Amino acid sequence: MSEPYELTACQALAELRGRRLSSEELIASCLRRIAELEPTLEAWAHLDPPRALERARALDAGAPSGPLHGLPLGVKDVIDTAEFLTEHGCPAVFGGSRPKSDAACVALASRAGAITLGKTVTQAFACGAPVRTANGLDPDRTSGGSSAGSAAAVAAKMIPIAFGTQSASSTIRPASYNGLVGMRPSMGLISTAGMKCLNPSFDTLGLLARDVSDVELLWCTQVGVPFERAGLPARPPRIAVCRAPWTAAADQSARDAVDKAERCFALAGAEIRDLPLPEPFGRLVEAHERIQSYEAARSYAAEYFQHAGALDEQVTALIETGFGIPFEEYLQLQKLAAGARREFGVLVGDADCVLTTAAPGEAPLGARALGPAFKSMGSPNQSRAWTLLHLPAVTVPCHTGPSGMPVGIQLIGGFGADRRVLRVAHWAAAVLSS
Amino acid sequence: MSEPYELTACQALAELRGRRLSSEELIASCLRRIAELEPTLEAWAHLDPPRALERARALDAGAPSGPLHGLPLGVKDVIDTAEFLTEHGCPAVFGGSRPKSDAACVALASRAGAITLGKTVTQAFACGAPVRTANGLDPDRTSGGSSAGSAAAVAAKMIPIAFGTQSASSTIRPASYNGLVGMRPSMGLISTAGMKCLNPSFDTLGLLARDVSDVELLWCTQVGVPFERAGLPARPPRIAVCRAPWTAAADQSARDAVDKAERCFALAGAEIRDLPLPEPFGRLVEAHERIQSYEAARSYAAEYFQHAGALDEQVTALIETGFGIPFEEYLQLQKLAAGARREFGVLVGDADCVLTTAAPGEAPLGARALGPAFKSMGSPNQSRAWTLLHLPAVTVPCHTGPSGMPVGIQLIGGFGADRRVLRVAHWAAAVLSS
Repeated sequence: MSEPYELTACQALAELRGRRLSSEELIASCLRRIAELEPTLEAWAHLDPPRALERARALDAGAPSGPLHGLPLGVKDVIDTAEFLTEHGCPAVFGGSRPKSDAACVALASRAGAITLGKTVTQAFACGAPVRTANGLDPDRTSGGSSAGSAAAVAAKMIPIAFGTQSASSTIRPASYNGLVGMRPSMGLISTAGMKCLNPSFDTLGLLARDVSDVELLWCTQVGVPFERAGLPARPPRIAVCRAPWTAAADQSARDAVDKAERCFALAGAEIRDLPLPEPFGRLVEAHERIQSYEAARSYAAEYFQHAGALDEQVTALIETGFGIPFEEYLQLQKLAAGARREFGVLVGDADCVLTTAAPGEAPLGARALGPAFKSMGSPNQSRAWTLLHLPAVTVPCHTGPSGMPVGIQLIGGFGADRRVLRVAHWAAAVLSS
Repeated sequence: MSEPYELTACQALAELRGRRLSSEELIASCLRRIAELEPTLEAWAHLDPPRALERARALDAGAPSGPLHGLPLGVKDVIDTAEFLTEHGCPAVFGGSRPKSDAACVALASRAGAITLGKTVTQAFACGAPVRTANGLDPDRTSGGSSAGSAAAVAAKMIPIAFGTQSASSTIRPASYNGLVGMRPSMGLISTAGMKCLNPSFDTLGLLARDVSDVELLWCTQVGVPFERAGLPARPPRIAVCRAPWTAAADQSARDAVDKAERCFALAGAEIRDLPLPEPFGRLVEAHERIQSYEAARSYAAEYFQHAGALDEQVTALIETGFGIPFEEYLQLQKLAAGARREFGVLVGDADCVLTTAAPGEAPLGARALGPAFKSMGSPNQSRAWTLLHLPAVTVPCHTGPSGMPVGIQLIGGFGADRRVLRVAHWAAAVLSS
């Protein structure tokens, strides 16, 4: 057998159920992997190896607890955990803070048998200055943000599954940069209880793994449906290809990924059509950005008014931009968004999903390569509109860019059709890797 | 001058600005009122008089700080406060818990100069077993829930303004029971950061005062628009009267309130029409209840799995009902709700607002009158559908029931038209009190 840390969640579960592997062995293997790579990756904000091993032994000694029995999990540090510090990426304000109870997603995962190994690095409040966390596949490159630590840790095989969050592109972009499968579920259908609130209009849990099945497994434990490893769909899917106005700002490699996927999917029998977007959709990227700022200013009002000196320049700029946006503009943008949500459903028609760009391209160089010149973890603009539309999105690896780094594609489903888009993602991943 | 505690917020502000009253005098007057009535009312979970007086002196010594300069404020105990315990109505789980930072609404109010006097009583997690808090107008009757303490304290003139929350009827119902003006703003436009998450689909801040102007003042500080005391509208409003299917379950007094308002508004020149609701709207009350349970189960998963013995029967029943609801049903109900939101806008047409019932009738008898037989703070069913529709709602006092207790009406606006419905509420309150 390969080293346990190399297993995907579903592979590990099969070994655990067959009693060929204990949870303690799996956790210990992951902890050795973390000990080896963490000095390079800087993916973890807080770790508690003895606690994880103790929980693993308890699970090994008992009956199967649930669908995540014995699996190690990483949790982004804007998500509350009663057994770990939760500093929201900002120890200057939240240093030493330990919530009284777990976030909903953590409680549900724990109940299903997952073992939280620790909290993963994120920018301050999921929107602040870049963090040093390296890409799981190349330490000279950034992991992307804001679910930086979760994505790097899964890509480097420190853990098989992790929670991120997304209010713009914070799960899909780092997943693409790290060659992962990442999912942003339909807005509002998974409880955000215990997640640091940035945007009531956009905040969602993000799911990260190296495999579509593992993401689906995590999703199932959150919404409460039984997980069965998916077979391929009965017929090849109907796919609408969207080369949106904002893809012009992406690197060639991001557009190449969509072209490649389109060709592969057509060869595999998919029914392909183009999805041109009417004019108002071109305004959604900016609409998202403005709504995000308006809401961030209110959500972080306490931090801004009471801890101004402890906030970094990026958080401060976001909040101050937000306080400068008139309520009337915010309201008009919300109406634009609501109208676009209605119209988009009509445009997509009977397509099983939309194929589009996931990230601006390969992961840019990071803190290790650039030193003080490192200023950006990449633009969120390839996801802003989809986030604003409240639609479920899954990224799967597709292409290799000029530097040899992965570039994903993004599959967008209809509202609430999370499982349908996961099924297409299974099919797409199989087609793209064959 | 009357005692300072008797002043509404806008009246007190005028005195404060004219230097005829200091914030310290106002706070001291309110604290005396609290000391006198609190043994009967049981409205407060936590109070800190020395802190409030100290803040008042600091504000008196400085320049005007903002539109709420020097005003005492009550904050429902499911809303985070860094300077007070926040126990979510459940000390068995959250005893001694003090959040690291203020909720967004508290930070914005403080920045505007408000002084939080303390935290007000609520049921556990805003959905648990009845609390003893008495009605501010009759100690034998309940204040209603779940914003029980906030409503009672404002009605008893312990404070002029308070924050509640609403996920079903938790602001509108206690406001009606206490003869107050209460507002549930449009869903999603005021940040819920730092409010205990019950329903991502429904949670909103609630605003409570004895006067429409005071509610509008609070609303303005939250969304960031300047407050000016409203004049009456240029033309009498267009009002659609909705006798919804669920009003049949209300007491006669609730329906009488609507009839009385309709007559008064017509006499005052309003353009009145009926708003019949097509069949699917009859399902919204149950749809809200089922969505609420499904989401409560997830939002309170940590409390349920980790502190089961500390939860009361009502919280436990809500969570267990929720875990029994299949995801597919939840999703279908969300789609029903989204469809109803679209359709309702068309039905309302150019009406300025909808007139309907606010509460099931007068405040029922409470803990003091009934002892152990006290089991209910009243049904939320007169507000469930409006909450589900995400529309702004304002209740104003209208009628007196057979026991001499107040019965409000509810005015519902279009999504985002919060200020428009407040203007109609100004007009309605003037008409009804003339």
